Amino acid sequence: MKVSIVGATGYSGLELLRLVSQHPNLELISLHSLTGKGELLSETFPLVKETGYDLIVEPVDAVRISAIAEIVFLATPAGIAKDLIPLLSSSLQIIDLSGDFRLEKSENYDNWYGQSAAAQALRDEAIYGLSEWEQTALMGARLIANPGCYATAILLALMPLFEKLAMGDVIIDAKSGVSGAGKGLSPATHFMQTHDNLQAYKINRHQHIPEIEQQLSKVTESVAPITLTTQLLPIARGLMATIYFETSATNQQLSAIFATAYQQAPFVRIFAEQLPTIQQVIGSNYCDIGWHKDERTGRVTLISVIDNLVKGAAGQAIQNVNISQGWEQTLGLPLLPILI
Amino acid sequence: MKVSIVGATGYSGLELLRLVSQHPNLELISLHSLTGKGELLSETFPLVKETGYDLIVEPVDAVRISAIAEIVFLATPAGIAKDLIPLLSSSLQIIDLSGDFRLEKSENYDNWYGQSAAAQALRDEAIYGLSEWEQTALMGARLIANPGCYATAILLALMPLFEKLAMGDVIIDAKSGVSGAGKGLSPATHFMQTHDNLQAYKINRHQHIPEIEQQLSKVTESVAPITLTTQLLPIARGLMATIYFETSATNQQLSAIFATAYQQAPFVRIFAEQLPTIQQVIGSNYCDIGWHKDERTGRVTLISVIDNLVKGAAGQAIQNVNISQGWEQTLGLPLLPILI
Amino acid sequence: MKVSIVGATGYSGLELLRLVSQHPNLELISLHSLTGKGELLSETFPLVKETGYDLIVEPVDAVRISAIAEIVFLATPAGIAKDLIPLLSSSLQIIDLSGDFRLEKSENYDNWYGQSAAAQALRDEAIYGLSEWEQTALMGARLIANPGCYATAILLALMPLFEKLAMGDVIIDAKSGVSGAGKGLSPATHFMQTHDNLQAYKINRHQHIPEIEQQLSKVTESVAPITLTTQLLPIARGLMATIYFETSATNQQLSAIFATAYQQAPFVRIFAEQLPTIQQVIGSNYCDIGWHKDERTGRVTLISVIDNLVKGAAGQAIQNVNISQGWEQTLGLPLLPILI
Amino acid sequence: MKVSIVGATGYSGLELLRLVSQHPNLELISLHSLTGKGELLSETFPLVKETGYDLIVEPVDAVRISAIAEIVFLATPAGIAKDLIPLLSSSLQIIDLSGDFRLEKSENYDNWYGQSAAAQALRDEAIYGLSEWEQTALMGARLIANPGCYATAILLALMPLFEKLAMGDVIIDAKSGVSGAGKGLSPATHFMQTHDNLQAYKINRHQHIPEIEQQLSKVTESVAPITLTTQLLPIARGLMATIYFETSATNQQLSAIFATAYQQAPFVRIFAEQLPTIQQVIGSNYCDIGWHKDERTGRVTLISVIDNLVKGAAGQAIQNVNISQGWEQTLGLPLLPILI
Repeated sequence: MKVSIVGATGYSGLELLRLVSQHPNLELISLHSLTGKGELLSETFPLVKETGYDLIVEPVDAVRISAIAEIVFLATPAGIAKDLIPLLSSSLQIIDLSGDFRLEKSENYDNWYGQSAAAQALRDEAIYGLSEWEQTALMGARLIANPGCYATAILLALMPLFEKLAMGDVIIDAKSGVSGAGKGLSPATHFMQTHDNLQAYKINRHQHIPEIEQQLSKVTESVAPITLTTQLLPIARGLMATIYFETSATNQQLSAIFATAYQQAPFVRIFAEQLPTIQQVIGSNYCDIGWHKDERTGRVTLISVIDNLVKGAAGQAIQNVNISQGWEQTLGLPLLPILI
Repeated sequence: MKVSIVGATGYSGLELLRLVSQHPNLELISLHSLTGKGELLSETFPLVKETGYDLIVEPVDAVRISAIAEIVFLATPAGIAKDLIPLLSSSLQIIDLSGDFRLEKSENYDNWYGQSAAAQALRDEAIYGLSEWEQTALMGARLIANPGCYATAILLALMPLFEKLAMGDVIIDAKSGVSGAGKGLSPATHFMQTHDNLQAYKINRHQHIPEIEQQLSKVTESVAPITLTTQLLPIARGLMATIYFETSATNQQLSAIFATAYQQAPFVRIFAEQLPTIQQVIGSNYCDIGWHKDERTGRVTLISVIDNLVKGAAGQAIQNVNISQGWEQTLGLPLLPILI
Repeated sequence: MKVSIVGATGYSGLELLRLVSQHPNLELISLHSLTGKGELLSETFPLVKETGYDLIVEPVDAVRISAIAEIVFLATPAGIAKDLIPLLSSSLQIIDLSGDFRLEKSENYDNWYGQSAAAQALRDEAIYGLSEWEQTALMGARLIANPGCYATAILLALMPLFEKLAMGDVIIDAKSGVSGAGKGLSPATHFMQTHDNLQAYKINRHQHIPEIEQQLSKVTESVAPITLTTQLLPIARGLMATIYFETSATNQQLSAIFATAYQQAPFVRIFAEQLPTIQQVIGSNYCDIGWHKDERTGRVTLISVIDNLVKGAAGQAIQNVNISQGWEQTLGLPLLPILI
Repeated sequence: MKVSIVGATGYSGLELLRLVSQHPNLELISLHSLTGKGELLSETFPLVKETGYDLIVEPVDAVRISAIAEIVFLATPAGIAKDLIPLLSSSLQIIDLSGDFRLEKSENYDNWYGQSAAAQALRDEAIYGLSEWEQTALMGARLIANPGCYATAILLALMPLFEKLAMGDVIIDAKSGVSGAGKGLSPATHFMQTHDNLQAYKINRHQHIPEIEQQLSKVTESVAPITLTTQLLPIARGLMATIYFETSATNQQLSAIFATAYQQAPFVRIFAEQLPTIQQVIGSNYCDIGWHKDERTGRVTLISVIDNLVKGAAGQAIQNVNISQGWEQTLGLPLLPILI
C-alpha cells in the first residue's frame, strides 16, 4: 500500500521512514513537512543519501496526498492533524502520532494542550491505538490516534493491574531520551545542558497524564489522579517508567496477571524480577516489564521500558497499521533490538 | 593539620585529595591503599602527576598513620574501618566514609551489609556526620561516620519535613552517576553497558535505607518504611533523589520550613518551584532542593541533587572536619560548581 | 542456508545475529562461545529474550558445527580460527572475522599478532574479503578472511587513490567507538575512564597496519609505510578515519576517481566536500567518504566513516556471503542507518 | 585588584568567574554581557545561585567599567573587543580572550575572520599571551591577546620543536569538546547531533591557523603552511591535538628539548611515551604532552591536551594576569584536575 509521511524531517518521521523501508506491504510514495520547500530529505538527514528513500520533502498538500497515498502517517506537533484531516480524502487511512485525537473529552484537550480540540465527529471516529489493548477496535480503523510515548510504556504496565486488582494511588517517575524533546533548538537540548545531566520538566503538567487516566478508566471503575514526573536523560533514545503502587497481590499473582494479559502479545516481554534496562529495547518495538515487590512496605516498584521512537511512536504506528489491515502484527517490524 | 588518606586510589580518595589540596588548614602527609605497594599515585591517576600531590601509595599501616597524621580519612569499602580503627592511636581524628559506623543497631548492619558490625563502644562514640543537622554533636568529635551519598541527598530534603509535618509514606526514586559504583570492573560499569542506558539496581535492598530511616526517626515519633529505587545514570558524577509524599502543607508552608531549616546552612540552596538539575552542583558541596506540589493529587514531588563525590563523600567529610575543629564550615570548600 | 555463529557472546557475534535474523536466505542454527556452557544467550544479552533468537550458547564443537551448519561465522579473538578451521568439515563455508587469515606473509602475523601464523595452505586458500575490491575472487570462496574495522574504512578510501595516483606518505588519524575494544573488562573500557575522554592506544603498533599496506600494494608498485593512530572515542559504535596525503590531483579528479571506483558499489557513498559524520552510518553497512583539498598546502584531508560492527565486521561478513553465494550483495542488509 | 568580566553569560566568562573566585588577589566587581539587561547571572547559570558571585549582568558600558574596574576580561565573540577597547580607560588592564588582537598582519585578520582588523596602534601594543613563551613581554602588559584554544595546545607542543629542530610539514588532527563551539543554538550543538558522533568542521579554514603559523615563525626562519583539522567530540570540555611530523631527532633528543623548554613551566607536563588523555587535565591549567616516534616511518605522533576552557581560555588569562602583575604564575590556579 502507498504511504505518505507528514512531518518527515522530525525524528518520528525519520523513524517511520526506516520502518516503512523494511515493511513488505508498504511502499513509500511521498514525504511532507510543514517547512518543506522541495529540498531532498538528505539535506536534513544526510544518513538517507543514496538509500532509495532520499525523496523530495514536499509541503503539506492535502489534495496531493489524497491523490497519491493510501495510508498517511502524521508525525506533526499537536494542533496540526486536527486541521489537516478534514481536508484529506475519506478513503485514506490516517495514523496520527500527535495528541490531537487521543482525548475523548474536549475540555481535557483544551486544558492540557492549551488549544481547542478537534471536531467532535472526528474525535468520535478515532481509535486509540494502544495496540495490545485495542486489537478488535483497530481492525479496519480509518483514523488511528497513536498513543504518546510515556502513555505507551505506562499503560502497557498498568492496564493489566487496573483490570485485575484494586489499585490505589500510583506514582510514576519517568525518564526519556532527548529525541522525545524534538528537533527544536533550545538551551534544554543544547549538548552542554543535556550531557552529563538529568533535567525534570513538566512535573504533573505533562499532556500524557489525562491520556493515561482516561485509558485506565476503561478497565476499572475509578482511577485516582496519577503523579507523573518526566525527566530528560542524557541519551538519544529510550524511555523508562518507574511506577510505584501498593498492593496485597503477591509476586506470583503479579506474574500471573501479566502472563495472562500478554500471552498473545509478541511485543511485550515480561522480565518479572529481572529488571529491564533501556538498552535492551533500543531499535525494537518491545515493551519490557519487570518489578520488585518489597515485603517491608507492601509496595511494588515496576519498571517499563520502550524505545520512545519505536514502540512509543513509529513502531506502534506500523503495528497498528498491521492490525487494522488484518496483517500479522509483527509484519515488517524487526524483532531484534540493536546494541548501542 | 596533618592528613592521611586511606583508600587513595578510589574515586572518593582522589576527591579528598583534590579538596585537601585547596584547604588552608590541612596538609597532606600520606596516602594509603589496601593494595598499595609503594607505587606513585599517578600510576593509577595520571592527572596528579607533578602536582605536588603525587605521593607514594603506601600499604595501610596503622602504626605509621598514628605516628605521622593528626586526621585520617578512611575512604574504604564497608568492613575495613571497623577493623582498622581499633589499631589507630586514640589521638587521631577519624572520618570514616564507609557505612561501618552509621547504623546504631548492630542487627541493621548485620542485615543490610551482610557482615558483623563494629564494636559497640566505637559505634557509640561515632557521630553521624550529616553536617547541617549535627553541628553541635560534631564539635570536637574524634570519630565521624560520614553519611552515604544517597542518604545525604535524601536526608537533607526530608529531615525538615519529618521534623515539622506529619509525614506518611515516602517513595524515593534516586539516580546516581557511575563514580558511585566504584572502580571495580564489572559488566554493569563497562562503557558499553552503562552508556546510553539507565540501570536500576538494589531496589529496596540498598544499605542506605536503614541509615535514612534511623536518622528520620530522630526528629519524629514514627517513620514508615521507605521505598528506595537506586539507578545508574550514564554520567560520571552527580546524584538526584526524586521524592514523593502526600501532605496538606501548602507551597508557602514548605518554603517556610526549608527556609527556617537552612537559613544558616551555606551548602543547602532552596530552589523551591525552580527544579534543580544535576549539573548545577557538580564539583561543589551544595545540596540543591526544589519541589512541585500537585493540587490535583495533594502530592509533592521533591528533587534533591548533590555531587555524590563532594557533598555525598569528600566534601561533607571536609565540612565535618571544619565543624569539629571549630573552623568556618566553608573553609577550603570551593563555592562555585564547575560547568561540565 | 544454515548458519552457526562462533563467538556469539561478543559484540560482533551479536551483530551477526541481528543481521542473520533479517536475511531471507540465512537460517540461524546454533550459537557457540569459547566459554559457552549451555546457558541461553539472553543471560549475556537480555535484549534477545523471546525474539526467537535466544538460543543455547554451546561450547565450540567442530564436529557438531560441521554436522549441522552450512556457513559458520567465526567472531573470535585472534588465534582461535587458525586452530579451529582445520577441524571443521571442508564443505562448510567459513567467514573468519579475526585477523588469522588476513596477512599473506607469516612473519607479518608473527610480528604484529605476537603468535605463530596459521598453516600456509589455509592462508593460501583464504580470500581477503574487502567486498568492493574482491567481487570476483569472492565468488565461490570457501574461506573468507573478513577485513579489520580500521582496515575497511581506510582501504575503501585509499584503494582508488593508490590505484590511480602517485601516492606518497599517508598519515591516518583514526577513532573508534568502544565496541571495537571488545567486552573484556579493563580500566580503559570502564565508563569512568572512557566517558568524556579520548584515549590514544597502540599508536603505530596496531595490527591493521600490515593488513592495510599489504592490500594497497596490490594496486600500486610500492607503498611507503603508513602512520596510524588509533583512538578510543566515548561512543559505542562507529569509526572515523581522517587521512592526510599530498597530491597534485584536483578536486574534480578526486571526485572522478571515486565515482569510477564505486559506481557499482551500493555500500560506498561519496560525499565529496560535504564531510561525513559517524552518526550517518550507524546500524548500516555504508562507508561514507568525503574530503577537503587545501590549496594552501596541496594536501588532502579525507574522511571515511563506517559502523565498526557492521561494515567493519558483521555487515561486511554478510555482504561477503552474498557475493560468494552469487546473491545480490545488498540482500538482507538494511539500507537505512538508524538515528542514535 | 578589581575585576570586571565582559561576556559573563558565555562558557569562558563563567569559567573566568570560577577562577577569579579562587584567586586571592582578584575581586570580582561587575559582570557584563552584550545582551545583559540587569538580570541575575543565575537566570542563565543556576549553578551560581547564592554563591556570592550571582551578580547582576549589566550591559557593556565602557564608562562604568573604566570607573570601577582595574582589570577587565573580554570573553566576547570576535569583533567586539576591537571596538570596545578604544572606549575604555587607558589605565585599565585588558585581557582579550577573542581573536581581535592576536594577528599582527591586518590582512590575516581580514581574511580569516571576515571583517576588518582593529586599529594598528592597539594591535601593536597587544602582547600575545602564550604564557610560557612570553613571560618577559607580558610583564607590565596593559593589553593582552589571550591565545586561542587550539593555538595554545598546538603551540605549546610545537614551539620547542620549531626552535630547536629543522621542521618540515606539520599535520594536525585536533578535537575539541562542545563548549568550544559556544552557547549559540544550532543543529551542530543539539544533543541529538553531537551525542554519539564526531563532526569535522572548518577543515583548513579555522582562524587559529594564521595565529599558529605567525607564532611559530618567531622561533625559526620559515614555517611551511600547516594542515589543521578541527573536530567536535561528544564531550563538554577538553581538547586534544594530535600532531604529525617527520624528524631525524631521537626520542632522547625530543625528551631533552621538551625538558629544557619547560623546566620552569609549572603548567606544562611532559608525559613522553606515556600518551596523555583528555580527562587528565579537566578543570586544570595544565597542558600535557606525550609522543611516539615510529622507527618504521621516521615520523612522530605527538599528543597535546588541555582543558579548552582553562588553559585554552580562562586559566591562561589568569596566568597572564599573574605574570603581568609580577605575581607567582600559579597564583589562584588550582593544581589538581577534577576527575569527571
